Formats: sequence, C-alpha cells, structure tokens
Amino acid sequence: MSISASKYTLGGMLNGMETDRGSGTRIVIVGGVAGGMSSAARARRLDESAEIIVLERGAYVSFANCGLPYHVGGEIDDADSLLVQTPERLAAALNLDVRTGHDVIGLDADRREVVVRTTAGEERIGYDALVLSPGAVAARPAIEGLDSARVRTLRTVEDAIWLRDGVDAGARNAVVLGAGFIGLEAAEALALQGLHTTIVEFADRVLPPLDGEHAWPVEHELTRLGIDVRTGIAAREIIASPDTDTVVLADGTRLSADLIVLATGVRPDTAPFEAAGIETERGAIVVDQHGRTSLEGVWAVGDATVSVDPVTGVRRPVALAGPANRAGRLVADDILRPGRARSIPPPLSTAIVRVGALTVAMTGANRAALDAAGIDHHTVHLHPNQHAGYFPGASQIKLSLHVRAEDGMILGAQAVGVDGVDKRIDVIATAIRARMTAADLIDLDLSYSPPYGQAKDPVNLAGMVATNVLDETLRLWYAHDLDEVLASALILDVRSPEEFATGHLPNAVNIPHTELRGQLDEVRRAADGRPVRVLCASGVRSAIAHRVLAQAGFDSASLSGGTLTLRATLGATADNVLVTETTPVPV
Amino acid sequence: MSISASKYTLGGMLNGMETDRGSGTRIVIVGGVAGGMSSAARARRLDESAEIIVLERGAYVSFANCGLPYHVGGEIDDADSLLVQTPERLAAALNLDVRTGHDVIGLDADRREVVVRTTAGEERIGYDALVLSPGAVAARPAIEGLDSARVRTLRTVEDAIWLRDGVDAGARNAVVLGAGFIGLEAAEALALQGLHTTIVEFADRVLPPLDGEHAWPVEHELTRLGIDVRTGIAAREIIASPDTDTVVLADGTRLSADLIVLATGVRPDTAPFEAAGIETERGAIVVDQHGRTSLEGVWAVGDATVSVDPVTGVRRPVALAGPANRAGRLVADDILRPGRARSIPPPLSTAIVRVGALTVAMTGANRAALDAAGIDHHTVHLHPNQHAGYFPGASQIKLSLHVRAEDGMILGAQAVGVDGVDKRIDVIATAIRARMTAADLIDLDLSYSPPYGQAKDPVNLAGMVATNVLDETLRLWYAHDLDEVLASALILDVRSPEEFATGHLPNAVNIPHTELRGQLDEVRRAADGRPVRVLCASGVRSAIAHRVLAQAGFDSASLSGGTLTLRATLGATADNVLVTETTPVPV
Repeated sequence: MSISASKYTLGGMLNGMETDRGSGTRIVIVGGVAGGMSSAARARRLDESAEIIVLERGAYVSFANCGLPYHVGGEIDDADSLLVQTPERLAAALNLDVRTGHDVIGLDADRREVVVRTTAGEERIGYDALVLSPGAVAARPAIEGLDSARVRTLRTVEDAIWLRDGVDAGARNAVVLGAGFIGLEAAEALALQGLHTTIVEFADRVLPPLDGEHAWPVEHELTRLGIDVRTGIAAREIIASPDTDTVVLADGTRLSADLIVLATGVRPDTAPFEAAGIETERGAIVVDQHGRTSLEGVWAVGDATVSVDPVTGVRRPVALAGPANRAGRLVADDILRPGRARSIPPPLSTAIVRVGALTVAMTGANRAALDAAGIDHHTVHLHPNQHAGYFPGASQIKLSLHVRAEDGMILGAQAVGVDGVDKRIDVIATAIRARMTAADLIDLDLSYSPPYGQAKDPVNLAGMVATNVLDETLRLWYAHDLDEVLASALILDVRSPEEFATGHLPNAVNIPHTELRGQLDEVRRAADGRPVRVLCASGVRSAIAHRVLAQAGFDSASLSGGTLTLRATLGATADNVLVTETTPVPV
Repeated sequence: MSISASKYTLGGMLNGMETDRGSGTRIVIVGGVAGGMSSAARARRLDESAEIIVLERGAYVSFANCGLPYHVGGEIDDADSLLVQTPERLAAALNLDVRTGHDVIGLDADRREVVVRTTAGEERIGYDALVLSPGAVAARPAIEGLDSARVRTLRTVEDAIWLRDGVDAGARNAVVLGAGFIGLEAAEALALQGLHTTIVEFADRVLPPLDGEHAWPVEHELTRLGIDVRTGIAAREIIASPDTDTVVLADGTRLSADLIVLATGVRPDTAPFEAAGIETERGAIVVDQHGRTSLEGVWAVGDATVSVDPVTGVRRPVALAGPANRAGRLVADDILRPGRARSIPPPLSTAIVRVGALTVAMTGANRAALDAAGIDHHTVHLHPNQHAGYFPGASQIKLSLHVRAEDGMILGAQAVGVDGVDKRIDVIATAIRARMTAADLIDLDLSYSPPYGQAKDPVNLAGMVATNVLDETLRLWYAHDLDEVLASALILDVRSPEEFATGHLPNAVNIPHTELRGQLDEVRRAADGRPVRVLCASGVRSAIAHRVLAQAGFDSASLSGGTLTLRATLGATADNVLVTETTPVPV
C-alpha cells in the first residue's frame, strides 16, 4: 500500500476533528522516544492544524529508556510503569498519529516519502517535514559466539522484560560486557537480584569517561556490591550450551553466564538515511544549529546526530536523553516557526549514574578530552563534605574541576560521593553553559543551611582553590607525578603522626602543619636543595603549609586532593607504594 | 592597659616564629565568626608576616551559628561539635591571635585604634587595617515584659546551650516570636523535644520572604509537626512568674511559656562605629565594592553592611553566612593585594530552611520585592517531580520562577518540596548570577538518571513554560485573579471527572483535555462571549487545552500552577471556595 501525502490520517478522522483544517503541514517523525516524541508534542502545541505521524519500529513509544535497568533489578517492579505514554493517550491528548511496529527502511527525499515496513508489508508515507530520531543501536564487538540466545542488549522495554524473565526463571550467573553507564546499571541490577555478576571492560578502568582518580572508588563500590570487576581485558568468545553459556576472556578465564548483557557502546542507527544520500560523519547525521540535515525538508535529532562539544570543539554524537529532548522541541519550532526558532545548544554531555550507595557524575570535558584537544588546563581536587560537617550524615564528595590555564574558564568537573553530588555537578554544568570562570564559582550564592551545604559550598571552594592555582597563590603537584616526585623531591607530610602511621610515602618527613612554622630550618636541612612536595589527607592543610613554605623561599607544591586522591589514583597498587608503620609514631 | 601598634603579639612570640618579620601589617578584625574569621584566615594565607588579631566579644569564635537550632532540637547532641575552630587551633594552624571576651566598644580612626572592653578593663589596640565584622543583634519589638528571664534569642552558642538546658530541665511549653528562618528552626527544634510549641508571627503568613503560595504548605507542615501557628497577630505582653511565663497576644490569647525565643529579626550591631563617624545607612555600614568604609583603613563585611540587591537594585543589609564569608575573603585580598582584589559580588540572598520533611528555598527577588521595585515580570508555577515519576520515591516540587517581562531575564525562584529543592534553587541562583534568561534555562545540560532528575529537568521545564509565556504561546491567569475570573469568565476545568469531583470552582465546566477538541462548540456556547479560563491540577493539561482554544479563536488563559497553586494561594480558605461533589461525577 502506498499512502501519498494525503491530508487526513485514519487517526485524525477517528478523532472526528480538524476536518476543516486540511491545509495543515504533515510532519512525519521517525522514532517515538525522547527526541522524536518531544518534537511531536511540541509540534502539536504550536499547531493544531498539523498532521503529525510518529513511526516507531518497536512496540512501545515514549518509554523510559533510562529506567530499564531498574526493572531488571526489581526497584521498578511493574514494567508498565516504564511506559510514560501510549499511542492511545497521545492521540487523545495531543492528536498524534502514533504507529508502532513501523520500521522506516528507506527515504525518498525527492518524492518526500519514507518507506515503512510493517507486519502487513511495505508502504510509503509522504511528508512535508521529516524528523529523524532513529537513535542508536548496540555496537557489536568482534566476539565469537556473540549471537548466542543468552546475549541481550538493554535498550528497549522488551530487553528489560527478557532480562527480568531470565532473573525470575532462576538465572544464577551473569556477565555484563562493557562497564559504561548502562553496563554498570545492568550489573548492579543483576547483582541486586542475587546473580553472581561479572563485568568485563576492555579499558583499564570502569566508566572510561571518568578521570582515572574517580574510577577507583566506583570499582571499589562495585566490588562491595558483590560484582566481579574485570578491567583491561576483552571477552574473546561466548560458548553457548543448553544449560549455561561460557564467556571466555582474552586471558583464558572462563565465566559461566546464564544471562549476558551487551553494553559495549552504541552506534548511530542511520543506514536507510545514509543510503538516501543524507550527509553523515562516521555514521552520524550532520545537522546545522536548527537540526536541519543536508536534505531539504529533513531534520534530525538525538543519538544519531553529530553535535559539537562546546568545551573542546570536537564533533561527536551524544547519546543522552536530555539533549535529544531539547533538540526535538527546537526542531518543531524550526519547522513551524521558521526563522524564529532558537538554535539547538551544543550539549555538554553532563551525565550521572548511581552505583550502589554512590553517585557518580560529570559535566564538560574530561582530562583525556582536554589533552586530546590540546587545551592547557589546571585540575583541582577537593574532598568537601556535602553539608555541614557537624550535622548528622555528613559525607565527603570527591570533586575535581578542570579550568583553562589561560583565563580560568571552567572546562569540566567530576564528582563521586554518597550525597550532594548531583547538585554540585548541575551547578557547575550551569556555570559552564554560562562560560563562567573559577572566580565566578566563588561568587555563587548557593543555598546554605546545615542539612544542605556549607557556608562555603563545595562549588565555592572549588572556585577558591582553582583561582589560587591560577594566580599562583597555590602551586599543586599531582598523584600522577608521583614517580618523579619520589625520585627528586623532599616529601613533606603535614598530617598528624597518627595519620602518618596509617600509611605514607617512602622517605616522607612528617611535620604536622601546626608545627611547620617552628621547623622551617629542619625542612631546609632535609630538603638539601631539593624541591619540597607537601601533602596531607585532602589538600587543605598542605595548602596552608605550602603558603608558609613558599613565603619562606622554598620551591614548594601541595598534592592536589591529598592522600585521598593519591590512593584513588594509585588504585589497587596503593598498598604497594604507601608505607604503613607497624607501630604508630608517638605524638 | 594600652597596647600601641607593637610588632609582636604574645601569641606570635609563644609560637616562637616570625621574629624576623617585624615589618608585617597589623590587621585587627572585630568579630570572630563567618566574615571576620574568613578574613583572618585568608589574610594569613596571603601574608605570613602579617600580625592578625581577632577580637571576639563572646566566648567562642568560628562557631556554627546555623547549627544552633539543631543542638536545641537534639539532632546535634554535643554542643562542642558546633565549635568549628578554637583560638588554640587557629593559633597553631594559622598563627592567628584570637582574643575572646574582647568587646570592641569604640573606634578612634584618627589614631587607628579600637577601644576594647574585657573583664580586666579597657584597652586600646592599634591597627594598620581594621576589618569590622560585628554582625547583627536581635531586634527588640515593643512587647511589654520582653526582659523576662525566660526570653532568649538563638544567635550564640550560649543561647543554644541555655535553651537546651531549659529543655533538659523539663520545660513543657514554648513560644517562638517570629516565623522567619530562625524562628521556624527554633520552633521545630522545641517541638522535636516534645514541648508544646506556639509560633507567633505578625505578618499574615509564616516565612514572609516566601511568596504567599509557598507559605501555605510550610504552615501545613508546621502544624503536622504539632506546632501551633499564629499568624497575623502580635505578642502584646509577657507576664513573668516563677513557675512559667504567660505570653499575651493582641487578641487576648494567653499562652503559657517556659521558654520564649525572640526571633523577630535583626539589626546591624554598629553603634561604636557609628559613634566614630563611619558612614551608615539605616544603621548598616556603607561599603564600596571592596568592603572599604568611609574611614581610611577600615573595612567592613557581613550582616552589619549594606549591599545592593543585584536583581532589584535595592540597598539593604543581608544576614547570611555565605556572602559574609565571601566578602571577608575579598577584604583580606584588598588589604594585602590592593588593586588586585576582585570586587565583592552583590549577594542574591539565596536562602534555604528545613521544615519537618520539607525543604523551602528561594533565590533572587520575591514578588513583593519585584512589585516594590516596579519590575514588570511574569511568574510561572510548576509541580514537577524531583526525579523520574516511575522511580520509587518520586515527589513533587512546588516551583515558581519570576522572569522579566521585557527580555526573560531570570529574577527569582522559590521552591518547596521533600527532595531535590536545594539543587534546583542552586542551579537557578547560578543562572541568575550569570544573567541568564528563561530560554537559557531550557538549554541547561543537567544531570539525568531516574534517581536524580528527569530528562526534562524541573529547571528546564520552568524555562520552557516561561518562554512560552514570554512569546505568548502560553497565556496564564493566576490564583490571585480568582475573584475577577469567577465574576467574568467561563471556568473550564480540564481534569478528569474523578478529579473534578474532589473539589472544583463554582460554576466550572468540566471537559477533560482529551475530549476538548471534539467539544469546542459546547465551550463556545457555555462561554457565551466571555473569556475562557482553563485549569487543571498543575497547569500541564490546561496549557495543552489553552493551545487548542487559542488556535480556535477563544480568549483563553491557563491557571498558573493549577489547582495545586490555587489551593496553596487560598490556604485555609480553599475549602470555602472549592465545591466538592458528594457523588463523583460519572465518567
């Protein structure tokens, strides 16, 4: 059957309305989740006369992708609650013609038609404006046996139900391939259901977008959840058998697996549109600031499109719901209010994940992205409490901030902690969008009362430390400089003797910061012309000590983030480096 | 005894240091909490050679003012944990000469000396630079008998200990005068300890800085905590007796009170400095952007200083810890790095308070301030969930946003809810500092995962609604326009019949939004030329209905915040206005 660009849809007629509005624009939207559905809803709000057809390959639209792991894990027990909308409700509320089970397999841009495959066969549907929101599909790494029936992605409601059914049917062992956001959520969900769960990651750490010093506490938490974490290794083969599969790793390790979750990344799902000649870049659709593609009358949004990183200028697709929703809305504006639509903002890739008791979040560029882009920057590490230390429930946030060396512009931030992490990352994400500098962070009037924050909020403090570095009031050394420092500097540990005894760097000299002013001669003798590299637990006391030393003429620097960041950076190797006194040093 | 501007302090000499740094600037700081102590600590970090003397009237420095109510209430059981620092620790870590029990009673700016009273008598202390951080004292309203021994403020550690002692000694009834931030915290603390607690507020609602529609849920929560809330009434007299006092209200009500907390506001504590000729404005010290006063060599920070509201331009003192800390730090910069210090940012007065299970927060200007300043603005009300609705623990935030009519500049925001309130207010506070507009809020890349937010975060949503209002995609009517609307418009309630039956406006017509497109003729007949004023529960469905009606040619508007905001605005009178069906309307 071929439907030409007729004025009326079956859905519209059944609703018994708009029969006098036949001149409406026909907008066809490919993909009924996030960006696509935002575009459809906005289009209707702007134009009652538009004919709006949403074509969705799957059985569900507007479902909660990000909620899928929580159904697997049992926190969201009823899969129906993941269905934010149904075609029926969307028809009633917004007069949308939503067609599930409609797989768009072709595009004829000259005739302004898409080719759709359904169980009933193929049809062509005409459009005045076409919005492509096809999303992404799981990347399929070169693992032998990956087509085993026990392997599943976690991207659709069907996937979540399948995995949950497997859990309920008594699966005992699970292997998750990939320790990105979805991999971690899937692994936690399966472990929560009592499965022996192993997560396998090719990169040298979990959550590769995290800077290394933040990955270690996440790995530690995964282990605490009972998850077997294997980093720096690939899965080589999946051997299927009727009872249970076996995942073979590159080192020969064999892991039993009743369920295998494939979460090694995604790629834009754009084949039919590439075939139609749409401009792409490494598989992602190229769009302008209004979401317009290279084809007249065709817009695109979401995971399948290229966007520019506002910090580094790098062009890449971003697979996040928020930017997709925003772009969808603005594309509807551009279609129905041409010339008046705001530009689609380049997404910052702010991201967050719950891992056990921890929250892990990031915004802007990470260290690898900054280094790759050649952006000269400083990084500061802090461990402030999320709220007043004297108020019950205080806990530390591991917070790092990247600022541009040239002018203090905020480039990125990452944080890990049990509480208050999302707030600080959101504030910094807002500051990055506003092109604020480190000094601007100091000036933010954030809400303070003991249950919520500190009079100097962690974000203010991050700004203070960063401005101190920028104006050279503070000079830092970093955990990743450790080898060089061990070889060439006096290490001055300004913690208390009790803290020192719990673990310290080899050959470190221990002078508590409260006694430093009286012992500068001793420091001078011990340094013997070498630079002095100071450290404490978090960097607060060592910064005070650095000021004392610098003003006394020493070549001094303070360890960014102190032993807390040092331990996190060293990870499993920390115990090999740090010397522990068997007998506490007397005070 | 008179100490001239000698080079060495006893503390400095005891530390056995700096004997070769006699040329250091002597900085004298009046007030050892918040702004004063921030100034002292920063000064030391910048200059090891400076002599830094902190004069504090009370017995404690650097204590946690904001934590005091929680000691009274027992959440912070050990009063010592409120002492963030001690003079001894400050001497050891920062070489500060901190003198408690030192009351500055005079200033001789010509001789650069302050006059100090201690238990040992009076002395004069010279300075090169003087930082005034005297704070504020409780305003004393004209209540007869206010000098009763059972009346106490809650501003010092001694106050908190006294009140806690009273609780522990078996006090049964408490009256709190004033329902501002400290009054609410004090009332909750006393109620938590089992006292029958009454809070008396002269204004017509609790927390007068809150816009009226947010005050009602707060009052409701206070009542749920067992607190007797009396608004719109003054205390007239306190009758002391050995057993228990009696507080008499203006209407003759008599309240027994073993403990009476005076929390009716504060005034700057500046008498000795005014006497010395320092420029003040309604009792607060006038300072420039670097905290400099009208007297050479004298700086001032904190609650006792005038600052400019960056939204309205109004000049007023701000009694908040965060701005005081920041100003203190920048004053140290200006003293020790003249010409290089950044300006002190005008504080936004972001504030937050926990009230039972609720968090109440605000930033920027409230409606009264905007109206007083004559700033033409729009207000939008939303009730988004703090995180994905399908994730366990979802709860609504009552969020309002004021934007400038002219250009959408964000002017202020307020929020009440059980979770996620602080985050949204902090993000908006950051946006205000960055001079963002409503459209900019849409574009913020805030962290999203189901436990933390929504793909369209409440802040994004607020920006969307506000831009819709600004570009006239959406037209609002407000709960405070109710009388006029009842008199002259067709009220169209687009909720479900079940919701309608639970309470609706008189003469409202109920057409669910999903059926509206098919019933436009009925609406036209019912309106009979009158405007149509639409409402639903929160404003989402009525906005959709408004779009349908507006495009069909109706004079339509949607109730901002829906019945949720309507009920909160009407407060206790809601039940008199809303009609409740005894029998649910059949679907």
